[in-house]
Amino acid sequence: MNRKSAHLTLETVEGTGQRFGVLTGSGMRMTLDDRNGQQGPTPVETLLVALGGCSGMDVVSILRKKRQDIRHYEVVVTGEQREEHPRRFQRIEILHRVHGADLSPAALEDAIRLSDTKYCSVHASLVPEIEIISRYEIVPA
Amino acid sequence: MNRKSAHLTLETVEGTGQRFGVLTGSGMRMTLDDRNGQQGPTPVETLLVALGGCSGMDVVSILRKKRQDIRHYEVVVTGEQREEHPRRFQRIEILHRVHGADLSPAALEDAIRLSDTKYCSVHASLVPEIEIISRYEIVPA
Repeated sequence: MNRKSAHLTLETVEGTGQRFGVLTGSGMRMTLDDRNGQQGPTPVETLLVALGGCSGMDVVSILRKKRQDIRHYEVVVTGEQREEHPRRFQRIEILHRVHGADLSPAALEDAIRLSDTKYCSVHASLVPEIEIISRYEIVPA
Repeated sequence: MNRKSAHLTLETVEGTGQRFGVLTGSGMRMTLDDRNGQQGPTPVETLLVALGGCSGMDVVSILRKKRQDIRHYEVVVTGEQREEHPRRFQRIEILHRVHGADLSPAALEDAIRLSDTKYCSVHASLVPEIEIISRYEIVPA
């Protein structure tokens, strides 16, 4: 069984703050906060982080298997939310920016496609009503 | 326009590590890592954190509006993933554990229902194939 967990504890019991201390099942700590508290990312930002990280780890792993020479790699995730409740995302763009020597666009396209359609657990957990666009930029090293 | 973003940079360019430093659009930093690196939560754990935080912030906010006397509040999120790719979640349980004086079960049930069905942007972003179960425990202070 592939089980994951997270334990969140409200740190701002007094007042109106909404800061939570988080301990994940793998023993990692982080802080979530609302827009006023600003001690950590908001939950909605955290969803984008989860998606970008999932996709980024897939892509870097596949590019390494394809022996691509990566010197620097960034993932920029941008999402637009609905104006009405529930304010789920309507559209998310995932930009993969890879710096390296002699990088193959075909290898990168293949890696992104495999992540989007097969490997990324977070991507596969999101409703199809969210338009998810993947793009890439290759920066020669 | 309600726009959110996150910028992830691969910190382990050499070797096989998959650690990403994250800067969110609201200026918050965190670290994501894979299971081997263990410098931060994994992307899949981070999805549970986003869901638990979103739901927890809704519930605490609604309980405060209903003038419930909260002394301690935890959210425990547990998810089971599919064994096959894509390993999206199959089932997620969100347990709200509220400690307080004279807490109203009806108020808590109402808060959870409003979050699950109306307010929680992360919940509304997840595919309906994921069975999401919300439970609660009231601990008298």
